[in-house]
Amino acid sequence: MKTEKEKMLAGELYNPADPLLLKERDEARRKVRIYNQTLETEGEQRLKALKELLGSTGENIYMEPNIRVDYGYNIHVGENFFANFDCTILDVCEVRFGDNCMLAPGVQIYTATHPLNPTERNSGKEYAKPIAFGNNVWIGGGAIINPGVTVGDNVVIASGAVVTNDVPDNVVVGGNPARIIKQIEI
Amino acid sequence: MKTEKEKMLAGELYNPADPLLLKERDEARRKVRIYNQTLETEGEQRLKALKELLGSTGENIYMEPNIRVDYGYNIHVGENFFANFDCTILDVCEVRFGDNCMLAPGVQIYTATHPLNPTERNSGKEYAKPIAFGNNVWIGGGAIINPGVTVGDNVVIASGAVVTNDVPDNVVVGGNPARIIKQIEI
Amino acid sequence: MKTEKEKMLAGELYNPADPLLLKERDEARRKVRIYNQTLETEGEQRLKALKELLGSTGENIYMEPNIRVDYGYNIHVGENFFANFDCTILDVCEVRFGDNCMLAPGVQIYTATHPLNPTERNSGKEYAKPIAFGNNVWIGGGAIINPGVTVGDNVVIASGAVVTNDVPDNVVVGGNPARIIKQIEI
Repeated sequence: MKTEKEKMLAGELYNPADPLLLKERDEARRKVRIYNQTLETEGEQRLKALKELLGSTGENIYMEPNIRVDYGYNIHVGENFFANFDCTILDVCEVRFGDNCMLAPGVQIYTATHPLNPTERNSGKEYAKPIAFGNNVWIGGGAIINPGVTVGDNVVIASGAVVTNDVPDNVVVGGNPARIIKQIEI
Repeated sequence: MKTEKEKMLAGELYNPADPLLLKERDEARRKVRIYNQTLETEGEQRLKALKELLGSTGENIYMEPNIRVDYGYNIHVGENFFANFDCTILDVCEVRFGDNCMLAPGVQIYTATHPLNPTERNSGKEYAKPIAFGNNVWIGGGAIINPGVTVGDNVVIASGAVVTNDVPDNVVVGGNPARIIKQIEI
Repeated sequence: MKTEKEKMLAGELYNPADPLLLKERDEARRKVRIYNQTLETEGEQRLKALKELLGSTGENIYMEPNIRVDYGYNIHVGENFFANFDCTILDVCEVRFGDNCMLAPGVQIYTATHPLNPTERNSGKEYAKPIAFGNNVWIGGGAIINPGVTVGDNVVIASGAVVTNDVPDNVVVGGNPARIIKQIEI
């Protein structure tokens, strides 16, 4: 029989009020709060804290405060990861970035979702779908990435895009919902 | 003759530099600032502070910092109200939620508006239109709800939707401007 | 031969890891952090701090914390400038506002951009395009203004609009990407 955490990570309906999950979210909020209070001169502390917060990382990574995450440990970033001000990653299940990914300010990445049926939703049970980005992905400011989306290599997501479907390699997507607006010559 | 506050609450043009309104907004900002500084372990203080800030509430309510409001007392939330990170509610006039409403991160709810004509707008006078949500409404991340909108029961507002018109019961809306994209079977 | 700062301000590819630029961004982040920690009762300190942070300003200006900027000195605001909660201005090059401009919460103004080609982008070099607003511009909540955009006089940008092209005088624009949705009678 699966624990609530096992169900959560497997993308099944789970109970977010599970004591272990509550404890882990509080722990992440504590780490995030301390991170968001570091000074602009404390680059080494920020690097160390990020490596402790996230599931796995490259050497050269940076996120501008204020960051928001649910657990932290479900976020895996490659080499040369950069996120500008105020990015939110709801990592109820895995969020994976390749190398050389850049997030502009206010990017929102949501693995978390809920049943559409109100009776099911009001049960309090929820679920999540993993999100993955290839290498060399640039996410524009205020873009939103929905649960379950896979984004290819060399993709540019325009500012304000709401990405609801998978994105192939070497394209620019934009709009709400996001559509391919340009091919990128490699 | 109406006071500026009475005009404001009635949805008429009013002067936001009115001394009483300035004082009330400062008081709300003070309460919000203290709320946003509470720790993740201080759930009871948060609950108490929210009940003092908002106009009326159910028993079981929660909002993740950082919250933003204009007055607070114009916000009425039912039972089982939950708002994730960084939601903003400009409650210049009434914002009413039924029971079991959930806000994802970065939801923006704006009753506040201004005249379109620049001369009128530059007078400094502004106005507001109430917003209401039924029961069992789930608002996706980064969605924006415009002044005067009424949202029915069992509605799901997709992430990044910009809701400019009323929404009937039992639908999913999404896009900018938001349109009905799905019926929900109850 | 141009310095990295001269290239940046001229809209050419530049190296953001240049020591002078790093120092200037740290200084801006320090000023912004202190600004964002001021209290709602400290209006005079906020006014003084804003005038020190920005490149040039009118007398009557206000920005609600939390603000975000890259340098501050590239932002020029006219008389009667008002920005509500949580506005972000990436002023890698000039951002200019006429008189009587109002920003609703969460407005995002981005001069910063990157090459679309991943190899060029991964070089770390980036560039920027100036943004200008006329007089009497009202930018709705959560709107995004893209690099290089010029906005005319008496314009209203709807909440959630993503502005990717220039906007003429006396119109309302909205949507993603933003289109003219109404003429304003002056």
